[in-house]
Amino acid sequence: MFRTHTCGQLRLPDAGQEVTLSGWVQAGRDFGGLTFVDLRDRYGITQVVFDSDDDAALADQAGKLGREWVVQVSGEVRERTSKNPNRPTGEVEVLARTLTVLNKSKVPPFTIEDETDGGDDLRMKYRYLDLRRGPLQQNLLFRSKLALAVRAYLGGQDFVEVETPNLIKSTPEGARDFVVPSRMNEGQFYALPQSPQTFKQLLMVAGYDRYFQIVKCFRDEDLRADRQPEFTQIDCEMAFVTQEDVLNTFEGLTRHLFSEVKQVELGDFPRMQYDEALRRYGSDKPDLRFGMELVDLSAVAQGRGFKVFDAAELVVGIRVPGKADLSRKQLDALTDWVKRPQIGARGLVYAKFNADGSIKSSVDKFFDQEALQAWAAVAGAEAGDLLLVLSGEEEASRKQLGSLRLHVAAEHEMIPAGVFKPLWVVDFPLLEWNEESQRFHAMHHPFTSPKREEVERMLTGDHETMKALKADAYDLVINGAEIGGGSVRIYDRSLQEKNFQLLGFTPEEAEAQFGFLMGAFEYGAPPHAGIAFGFDRLCAVMNGQSSIRDFIAFPKNNQGRDVMIDAPALIDAKQLEELGLSLEIAAEKR
Amino acid sequence: MFRTHTCGQLRLPDAGQEVTLSGWVQAGRDFGGLTFVDLRDRYGITQVVFDSDDDAALADQAGKLGREWVVQVSGEVRERTSKNPNRPTGEVEVLARTLTVLNKSKVPPFTIEDETDGGDDLRMKYRYLDLRRGPLQQNLLFRSKLALAVRAYLGGQDFVEVETPNLIKSTPEGARDFVVPSRMNEGQFYALPQSPQTFKQLLMVAGYDRYFQIVKCFRDEDLRADRQPEFTQIDCEMAFVTQEDVLNTFEGLTRHLFSEVKQVELGDFPRMQYDEALRRYGSDKPDLRFGMELVDLSAVAQGRGFKVFDAAELVVGIRVPGKADLSRKQLDALTDWVKRPQIGARGLVYAKFNADGSIKSSVDKFFDQEALQAWAAVAGAEAGDLLLVLSGEEEASRKQLGSLRLHVAAEHEMIPAGVFKPLWVVDFPLLEWNEESQRFHAMHHPFTSPKREEVERMLTGDHETMKALKADAYDLVINGAEIGGGSVRIYDRSLQEKNFQLLGFTPEEAEAQFGFLMGAFEYGAPPHAGIAFGFDRLCAVMNGQSSIRDFIAFPKNNQGRDVMIDAPALIDAKQLEELGLSLEIAAEKR
Repeated sequence: MFRTHTCGQLRLPDAGQEVTLSGWVQAGRDFGGLTFVDLRDRYGITQVVFDSDDDAALADQAGKLGREWVVQVSGEVRERTSKNPNRPTGEVEVLARTLTVLNKSKVPPFTIEDETDGGDDLRMKYRYLDLRRGPLQQNLLFRSKLALAVRAYLGGQDFVEVETPNLIKSTPEGARDFVVPSRMNEGQFYALPQSPQTFKQLLMVAGYDRYFQIVKCFRDEDLRADRQPEFTQIDCEMAFVTQEDVLNTFEGLTRHLFSEVKQVELGDFPRMQYDEALRRYGSDKPDLRFGMELVDLSAVAQGRGFKVFDAAELVVGIRVPGKADLSRKQLDALTDWVKRPQIGARGLVYAKFNADGSIKSSVDKFFDQEALQAWAAVAGAEAGDLLLVLSGEEEASRKQLGSLRLHVAAEHEMIPAGVFKPLWVVDFPLLEWNEESQRFHAMHHPFTSPKREEVERMLTGDHETMKALKADAYDLVINGAEIGGGSVRIYDRSLQEKNFQLLGFTPEEAEAQFGFLMGAFEYGAPPHAGIAFGFDRLCAVMNGQSSIRDFIAFPKNNQGRDVMIDAPALIDAKQLEELGLSLEIAAEKR
Repeated sequence: MFRTHTCGQLRLPDAGQEVTLSGWVQAGRDFGGLTFVDLRDRYGITQVVFDSDDDAALADQAGKLGREWVVQVSGEVRERTSKNPNRPTGEVEVLARTLTVLNKSKVPPFTIEDETDGGDDLRMKYRYLDLRRGPLQQNLLFRSKLALAVRAYLGGQDFVEVETPNLIKSTPEGARDFVVPSRMNEGQFYALPQSPQTFKQLLMVAGYDRYFQIVKCFRDEDLRADRQPEFTQIDCEMAFVTQEDVLNTFEGLTRHLFSEVKQVELGDFPRMQYDEALRRYGSDKPDLRFGMELVDLSAVAQGRGFKVFDAAELVVGIRVPGKADLSRKQLDALTDWVKRPQIGARGLVYAKFNADGSIKSSVDKFFDQEALQAWAAVAGAEAGDLLLVLSGEEEASRKQLGSLRLHVAAEHEMIPAGVFKPLWVVDFPLLEWNEESQRFHAMHHPFTSPKREEVERMLTGDHETMKALKADAYDLVINGAEIGGGSVRIYDRSLQEKNFQLLGFTPEEAEAQFGFLMGAFEYGAPPHAGIAFGFDRLCAVMNGQSSIRDFIAFPKNNQGRDVMIDAPALIDAKQLEELGLSLEIAAEKR
């Protein structure tokens, strides 16, 4: 037996007991004839003391222990003379009688403390050491707890967890698939699922009524900081439900998770139409933790001879409360920020409503104080406030300003900490017209149903009708992050065929790729709807963090590499041969 | 709202209520002016009645409903005049006032009943219909419930569920990997994990102490009936434990699962050494539900001039109780059975101990009654018993007879139903010498530790020493099926290097493939051990079934194909090009 207790277990009532602990040497220090060693495991830290008066050889051995060595110690628990109130075990220590070194450790390449001196690359390479640090360990323990809570809740609501296959078929719609060559079916490939979408719909056809799965999904995209080639979803589907049923069920789940795992009671889950979200926040995932809503200034800003505004479809602003004192340099920086290609605005207009009642704007030439007072009236600006204004094509301007709103709020710490503001964004458009490809793209995915009352229009309508169709599609947004999204599904073959046709599929392509699903719709498919939560993102948002990578045990870097195990890697020529494949690229490029 | 209740919910106290149900038409029948429709969903079946005296048009519409149509019915719950005691809802029916057809159904290609008329291939193609049948639905609901119980139990024992990556690195050791070409790292491949082995060991190095995961694993092997290219494991690892700790923990889990999900209280979990299991049962996964242990007859069967026996390393038999009355034809069939290449015996000797005290054997020429009495004495055979005897090389003969033992017991229904007999098989050999490749193979896997007391011998011993090394490796066997296996792991770099060397790795190969793990062992790796249960198999065994396929929602066939979605499939030339790959095989072969 390696231990009688963990390093987080001993308390004052245990004093006098003989115990055995095993763990890592967190720190050691000599103090006169006493050597103190902090012994650490997942559960906590316990102080062990070696007294050279008792056993000089043992104390000597203890003095030579290095950081991160793994040791086993036996001895008697006793009350500490100098207690540590910050540590649950801080009232006791173990007076060591025996010490066994279970394993030594080289000096770690970075300090294993909450704040470490290791850079990103080094910590990724030695991920197993980085994972020893408190913050990452708390993240992974949180994730495990959250997954258990999800399952317990959904299981209690009659949801069945069904594992869907990972080796499926590649479909060109949507993001790029990872593919897996088949050895037994040479020249053919499986694909890894981007989501279990069609399988969960088939489970509804099969009568499972309520399905869920916490499931890995895969997407071969160029990676950004918050994207990973493999990610985890809480994937759900329900039969015989309306959108309202789905929203209520998953509002219930979300409330439960926050309450159970975070001890946070969430407030309202308002519902906001997609159009309204864009209009008020310039985003389909508005952050409701702070105000600064978008204000339409066209009526008061156009027709004054300022060509930029006059030529614009929209002039739109946000009132930044109490920030009239921003310096010229700060305002220039904001201008540069919106002009970056990622945002794409052509410039930024400001108006400062000074404490003394005067107004200073970057367009004083066109707008006198009275004209600017009209802006203030529309925007509700008061003395001390700053107004930031963009103009141009309506949707683009709103989105640019929505981004600026987030940027300014973050930069000036105007977002309250520890606050969670959920909402449902609903009534998304069904289709998005793409000028370049001259075809529609699915706003959510090709299985999403138009609103019930629009089915007839979809089957018979013209091009403009299609553009205006709204879907029973919905997103759950918390603090400006998209936590989940879903939709009511098509369950009728002819409507599904029509949708594929609008999305540019020939009937043959639709049949080849999704014939099994359309076939299933002919054998008694029930009305159904579903949703998927991004589990990695949910973990991060619940902890007020933005990087999902810190909630994944072994993430890939931005090149899709696991630098610890050094994957992907070359494979044997024999493996390639068995798969009937050859590499097209020159050997020196590999 | 599509329903107020499910089809399994209504009871007598609900009589008088107005309700709405939705579900599938299981069956309909006309009876005078009444039309009865059995409405089915996952939760049950409720009888709906349409009375043509009340509403002739509605009753007429109901009479035209087809099997598997999806309908919504509203009406009043009332007590049935003729109750059905076999159905939880059997005391009530719903008198329909409205009927809405939500979706029609073509006539299903096979009957959707517990016993179906559909062949395997047809049912695989229409898996979504097969999954509607009661037995499969019960299997998948069982699986979901079992997974929840596993998680609740392990979560309650401080195990952390950590998701390990699916895109990892290919290693030539063990079975064949599925590989995934990387687009961002052209010419390189990920592999899908055969198990999260190295990652769970790294989690122990990282201090997570107790890890588990219910996880998909992948193996590109030629498939047998009970193998699938993707399968699910309950994968676990623990730090600071001995083999004894692991066995006790997972005996606890197994007991809990049987008790919680099957209401079965398991008896003892005896521990049997690998050598003993082979000796007594001719198998490393003995089925303890019945006797018929192997008996060494060499002492009484050799030296009598029967050359086959005299030349053999071992003569070994099983006593089949009460089967002296097997016909010549039946015995010939058994002989043919053991001579099949899968078994590989050269012949079968029998002795019948007749009720009248006479003995009839297939080797009467060499063994008189007295000699055969000596066999009976050794084997404990009594009047009415049959003795089946094999001979040859010791290990091969034992395994052949072990197979025959199972075959005879199954054929003659000598295995009690509803009985569960678990045991731990322990003390497996560490290494297995392979004559052909002239190197050792790992009996469990390359990370398995020799027994603690044998470490020194392993580091310094000669070839014969290596052959005799025993590992701290263990299997959980229930009713002759291997449910799980695991081992105490190596956590020392030099011992791991030695093991790789014995397994035929050059130091460079070992470093290239497993350098990250051996590196981790240098930074304070704790002693650790683990186990993995085959989750699909566990589901099947707990239900007394042998095919794991019936517990997988969407399995592959023996060619690794999903015939429903028709995968694997060809992919676009563009996809291949992006991956830098080309197909080696001729177009016409595809």
